[in-house]
Amino acid sequence: MALLGSCERLQDAARGGVNPDLASERLARSRGGDDVSGRTPRSEAAVEQTIPHCLTVEAIESDPVFSQENQYFQSQNERYEAAVRRAVYLQKKIREMGWSETGPEFQYIYRCLSGDVALLLHRVFIRSISVLGSDEQIAKWIPLATDYRIIGSYAQTELGHGTYLQGLETTAVFDTATQEFILNTPKISAMKWWPGDMGRSATHSLVFAQLYVHGKCYGVHPFILQIRSLQDHSPCPGVTVGDIGPKMNFQHTDNGFLRLQNVRVPRENMLSKFCEVQPDGTYVRWGSQKINYFTMTSVRIAILPGEVILPLMKACTIAIRYSAVRRQSKLKPGEQEAKILDYQTQQQKLLPQLATAYAFHFINTYLHELFNRGYQDIQGKNFDSLPELHAFSSGFKAMVSQHCTSGVEICLRACGGHGYSLLSGLPSLYTRIIASCIYEGENTVLFLQTARFLIKCFMAASAGQPIPPSVTYLSSVKPGKCPAKDKSDFLSPETYLKAYEQMAIRLISSSAAKLQHLIQSGVTKYEAWNQCTVQLERAAKAHCHYITVKNFVETVEKLDNKAGIQKIMKHLCDLFALHGIFTNMGDFLYDGYLTAAHMDLVTASYLDLLAVIRKDAVPLVDAFDFTDKNLNSALGSYDGQVYQRLYEGARRSPTNQQGNPAYGKYLKPLLQNTLSKL
Amino acid sequence: MALLGSCERLQDAARGGVNPDLASERLARSRGGDDVSGRTPRSEAAVEQTIPHCLTVEAIESDPVFSQENQYFQSQNERYEAAVRRAVYLQKKIREMGWSETGPEFQYIYRCLSGDVALLLHRVFIRSISVLGSDEQIAKWIPLATDYRIIGSYAQTELGHGTYLQGLETTAVFDTATQEFILNTPKISAMKWWPGDMGRSATHSLVFAQLYVHGKCYGVHPFILQIRSLQDHSPCPGVTVGDIGPKMNFQHTDNGFLRLQNVRVPRENMLSKFCEVQPDGTYVRWGSQKINYFTMTSVRIAILPGEVILPLMKACTIAIRYSAVRRQSKLKPGEQEAKILDYQTQQQKLLPQLATAYAFHFINTYLHELFNRGYQDIQGKNFDSLPELHAFSSGFKAMVSQHCTSGVEICLRACGGHGYSLLSGLPSLYTRIIASCIYEGENTVLFLQTARFLIKCFMAASAGQPIPPSVTYLSSVKPGKCPAKDKSDFLSPETYLKAYEQMAIRLISSSAAKLQHLIQSGVTKYEAWNQCTVQLERAAKAHCHYITVKNFVETVEKLDNKAGIQKIMKHLCDLFALHGIFTNMGDFLYDGYLTAAHMDLVTASYLDLLAVIRKDAVPLVDAFDFTDKNLNSALGSYDGQVYQRLYEGARRSPTNQQGNPAYGKYLKPLLQNTLSKL
Repeated sequence: MALLGSCERLQDAARGGVNPDLASERLARSRGGDDVSGRTPRSEAAVEQTIPHCLTVEAIESDPVFSQENQYFQSQNERYEAAVRRAVYLQKKIREMGWSETGPEFQYIYRCLSGDVALLLHRVFIRSISVLGSDEQIAKWIPLATDYRIIGSYAQTELGHGTYLQGLETTAVFDTATQEFILNTPKISAMKWWPGDMGRSATHSLVFAQLYVHGKCYGVHPFILQIRSLQDHSPCPGVTVGDIGPKMNFQHTDNGFLRLQNVRVPRENMLSKFCEVQPDGTYVRWGSQKINYFTMTSVRIAILPGEVILPLMKACTIAIRYSAVRRQSKLKPGEQEAKILDYQTQQQKLLPQLATAYAFHFINTYLHELFNRGYQDIQGKNFDSLPELHAFSSGFKAMVSQHCTSGVEICLRACGGHGYSLLSGLPSLYTRIIASCIYEGENTVLFLQTARFLIKCFMAASAGQPIPPSVTYLSSVKPGKCPAKDKSDFLSPETYLKAYEQMAIRLISSSAAKLQHLIQSGVTKYEAWNQCTVQLERAAKAHCHYITVKNFVETVEKLDNKAGIQKIMKHLCDLFALHGIFTNMGDFLYDGYLTAAHMDLVTASYLDLLAVIRKDAVPLVDAFDFTDKNLNSALGSYDGQVYQRLYEGARRSPTNQQGNPAYGKYLKPLLQNTLSKL
Repeated sequence: MALLGSCERLQDAARGGVNPDLASERLARSRGGDDVSGRTPRSEAAVEQTIPHCLTVEAIESDPVFSQENQYFQSQNERYEAAVRRAVYLQKKIREMGWSETGPEFQYIYRCLSGDVALLLHRVFIRSISVLGSDEQIAKWIPLATDYRIIGSYAQTELGHGTYLQGLETTAVFDTATQEFILNTPKISAMKWWPGDMGRSATHSLVFAQLYVHGKCYGVHPFILQIRSLQDHSPCPGVTVGDIGPKMNFQHTDNGFLRLQNVRVPRENMLSKFCEVQPDGTYVRWGSQKINYFTMTSVRIAILPGEVILPLMKACTIAIRYSAVRRQSKLKPGEQEAKILDYQTQQQKLLPQLATAYAFHFINTYLHELFNRGYQDIQGKNFDSLPELHAFSSGFKAMVSQHCTSGVEICLRACGGHGYSLLSGLPSLYTRIIASCIYEGENTVLFLQTARFLIKCFMAASAGQPIPPSVTYLSSVKPGKCPAKDKSDFLSPETYLKAYEQMAIRLISSSAAKLQHLIQSGVTKYEAWNQCTVQLERAAKAHCHYITVKNFVETVEKLDNKAGIQKIMKHLCDLFALHGIFTNMGDFLYDGYLTAAHMDLVTASYLDLLAVIRKDAVPLVDAFDFTDKNLNSALGSYDGQVYQRLYEGARRSPTNQQGNPAYGKYLKPLLQNTLSKL
C-alpha cells in the first residue's frame, strides 16, 4: 500500500537491476504482509493528500527542457537561464496540456521541478493585486500579468529592513500638482533587496513604501511600479536595478536590488481596496487592516509541504536507501561487513528524522484544515480566529522549518563523505531548506509571536476567561506524577501525551510568572519581555511540539480500519514522541512529573523502537514515492546502484570534460623547469 | 591588549570610516580600562600562540596572485586553477622571502589564504614517505618531491571504504618472476575516491592496497605509484584517473578517482621501513605497528586550529560585528530601533559560540601539549601513552568539529537573510567546516573509540588498577548533592566543575553497567556493544565536555597576573560552563545531583552573563585579529559598513556583468509575442 503516493515510479532500470541489499529490504516486508511500500502491490492509500498526478509527472519528466540532470554542474547564470527557459516553456505546456495553474497540477509540476523554475514571484504579484487592488486596478493589471505582457515581482524587503516592516525606509510622497507619487530610496539601506524575479527578469514590481501626503506619514503602502522598458528591458528613468549576486542556493532565482531616485507613478498606482489618497491629498481608509495578517498566515502555511517537509522526505529517502546499501566494518568478527543501517547509532540518526517527516506531513494537514476553517469564518466577516491562526502559522512555520533543516543536515552527515558530494543531492537540499528558517519571518521572531499568544491565553485561562479550542489544555489541572511503571507503558500515547502537556504548561506558566514578577518589581513591560525571551521561545517550541505529537496520535487513531498501516504508523508516532523526550530530557525531568527511573524506561522503549522500525525503513521511504529524476541523487536512486551512479556523475562533471588549463600554465613549468627557474 | 594576536590589521579605510555603532562598542571598553581588543593600544598578550607574523601576512595579502576577492563568483574549475596558481607561485615566494615551509610561517600563510591553495596533499605524500619509507626510499623520493620534479598525493579512501581500512579492496599481488607488484582495483567500489590533488594535478600517488604474496593476504600496505606521464601529464598505462566532480565546498581541491588495471610497480616501491617483501616472496615485518596510530592522532590534532576552530572564530567575528550594526525593531516604543545584539535571543545565539571559540582555543593548546609529551615518550620508545592520545585525539576531534560546525551554522542563521548571501562569508565557512565532521574519521566512530577507552579505564579504576592521569576523575567517590544555594554559587568553577564531573562519571558508569548486564544475560559482546552505542556516544561527549570546561578553568586561573583579562575570561568560562548545563539539563538533573531549584539558579546566572559579556562582545572578536581580506565578508569588516559592502559585492557579481541572454532568448518573445504565439 502506498502511504503517500500512488503513482508508478519512472525508474531507470538500465543499471543491472536493483542492488540485492536493497531488494532484500523490500522483500522482507512484502513477506510480512504489512506492506507500506509505494512500489509493491497496493490497496487504497491511507493518506493520499499528495498523490502525484501520473500524467503530469510523466509529461514533465520526459521533457528534456525540464531535465535537472546537469543542475549540480551549473553556474548561477546557467541555473537562472535554465529556470527562465523552464518557466516560459511551462506556460506553453500548461496551455497544451490543459493543466490548471491554480489547481493541484501546479503542485505536481512544482514537485517535479523541485521548485527550480523562474517567475514564481509573478504569481505573488498577481495575488497581491487581486487581494489589495480596487476593481479598476484588478481590471487593468491582472489581464496584463496573466498574459505575460508584463512580468511582476514583489518588493518589500530592504537592505536595512526585513522583519520589521514599520521600519521600511522607501518613501512615496504625493504631489497634488501632478497627481503622482514620487518614489525614493533615500539612503543605501532603503534599497529594495532580495525580491525574487526582480534582479534580471521583471518589468514591474509591487513596491512597498512609506506614504507621505502634505508632510504627514501614513505608513507602508503598496505601489505598482514599472522598472524596465517593455521595448528593450532597460531600466526606467530613475531606476537602478540588478541582481544581488551569489547565494547559498536559489541560484535559479534573480533576487534583486532596486534603487529609486524621484521615480513618479500616477495616483492610480497605489493599491486602493482598503485605502486611497484622493486628488486633493485626503487620505481615506476603509475595511480591516487585519486581512494583511491573513495573507502572511496563508503563505507561511503554504510553503510547508513543498519547500520544507518535502526536502526532509527526500533526504530521508536518500540517506536510508544508501544506508541499506553501504556496508562498512563488522558487527561480528568473521561475518560480512554490516549494512550501516544496522548500527544503532545510524538508526538513531535517521529513524527519528523519518518519524519527523511523517509527523510533519500530518501536522501540515491539520494546519491546512485549521486555515480553511478560519478562511470560511473570515469570508463570513468573522475575524475572531485570526490571532490563533497567526500564532499557529508563526510557531509551526518556525518549528517545522527548524526541525526539517536540522533533519536534512543529519541525513547529509549520516552519509559520510559521499553525502558531501553534490551528486548525492543532499548538499543542495540543505543549502536550500536552511533559507526557510529565515524567509517569511525569521524563526526566533515567529516563535516569540506564538509565545505572546500563549501568554495571553494562559492569563485569560487563569482568569477563567474563554480561550481558543487549540489551547484549552492550558487550563488543565496540574497532574501529580506519571503513573508509568514499565517500559511498555511509554508505548501508550496517553502516557507520553500527558508528559508533553505537562511540560508545555509548565514552560508557559513559568515564563508568565517570571514576566509578571519582573513587571511587579518595577521593570518596564518591554524590558521584562526581552529578559524573558529565551524562556518564551522555549515555551513556544514546547507548545508546538506537544500539538504535533497530539495530532500524530489522533491521526493514527483514525486509521483503525487499516490495521497494517496503523501498526507501523503507531510505531513511528511512538518513536517521534519518545525521541522528543529522550533529547529534551531536562524539560521533562524538571518538575518531577517524570523521574530518572521513568527516563530509563523511555530510553529503553526508544531504543527498542529503533530496532523495530529499522525493518520497515526502506519501504517507509519508498512510500514517499519520489522518482529518481526528482531525487536527482546518486545515493538515493530506487535501484541502489550508488557507486556506479557516483562514477557516472563524476565522469560527466565539467572538471573532466574541459581539459586542465592549469597543467600547461602552472604545473608543467613547475615539473619540467625546476623551481629555480620559476 | 590583544588576546590572540598582535599584528596591526591592514584595514580598508576607504569607505568613510568606521560605522558609529561599531565604533561606540570599541570606545566603551577602552574607557572601562579592560581593553581586550586587538585594535587599541596593547600591552603584552595573554595567550599569543597564534600571533600572525606581520611581514608574512602583509606579503601575502598585498600580492594580487593571492587575492580571494572574487572567490564567491568562481566556478569549480576557476577555483581549482586559482588554487594551483597560488600553490606554484607560493613556492617561488617562499624561496624569495626565505620563509620556512615547516615552521610557523606556513601556518600564517595557510591562515591568510584560508586554505584555498592546491598541492597540500603533496606534503602528506612527503611526510608519509619520511615516516614509512626505508632510507633508500627516502633518499630516492624525497628530493624529487621537494623539488617538485614529481607531485604526490595520498590514495587511501575508496568508493566503498572510508572508515574501515581493513576493508579496502585494492590489491597488490607480488610477482616473483618480474619482481613487481601488480596493482588492481578489481571492482567499482575498490576505486580510490576522494584523494586530494589526485583528480587533476598529481603525477604520483601513495596507494594503499591489500598485499598478496603467493596467494596469502598480508593486509594493507602503501605503494608508490606513478599515475601520470612526466612528459605530457597523460594517465599511465592501466590507469584511469579523474576528478570526482562538484562538492559542497573544497572546489579548489581536485579530489580524484583512480582505477587500476594490472599496473605494475617494482618491488622497491612498497614502503618498507617496517616490513618488506623479499625477492623470493618472503614477508618480513619489524618495528611497531602502533606508530601508524600516532600519525592519525597527529593529523586529527593538527587540523583543529586552522580548519575547525578558526572558522568558528571568523563566523563569530562576522555575526557579532554585524549584530552591533544591524538595527531592527524597537526594544521600547518611541526609541530608535535597537541593535540586534541587544536582544536576549540574539545574545543567546552568539555569545555561547564566542565562549566556545575561546574554550576550544585553550583546549587546542592542551591537546598540543599532551601530544608533544606523548611524542617525547615515543621517541624514547615508550608507547604507553598511545591509547590515551588516540582516545583524546578521536573524541576531541569529534567534539570540536561538531560544536564548531553547529556554531558556524548558528552564526549564519543569526544574520538573517544577509547571512545567506555568499558575500557574507558565512555560507562558505559552513559548507567547508561541515566536512571536518567526516574527514579524518567520522565523528560517531571517533566518539565510540573514545568511549571504548573510557569504559576500559572505568573498569580498571573499579578494579583498583592504575589509569592515565587525564581520567583519574573516574575513580572519584560519588558526591551526594550540589551544595549551591544562590545563583552566584554557580559562578564558582568548583561548583560547576563538580556537576560536570559527576555527570560524566554517571554516563560512563551507567553505560558500563548496561554493557555488563547485557553480556551477563547472554548477549554476545559485539551485539551488546552495538546496543549500547547511543549511550556510549553520549558518555564520550560528556567526558570531552568536562575536560574542556576543566581546562578553561585552569587556563583562567593561570592568568592571575593579568586581572583585566582574567576577569573577562572568567566570564566567558562561566558562560561556556553554564550554557552547557542549560542546554543539557536532563543529563545534570537525572541523578539528582542538581535539582530543579538549582536549574533555576543556573538559568538566572546564565542569562545574567549574557548581558555582561554582551558589553565586551565586539572587542572580544576584534581580538581574534582577522584582517578584512582574510574574513572576506561584507558583514564582518572592521569598519562595519555592511550595506555599502553588500552593494559593492552585488555590483561586481557576474550576474550583473555579462548581460542577460535569457531576455533575448525567452523573456522578450514571452513579453512581445503574447502567449498564443509561443
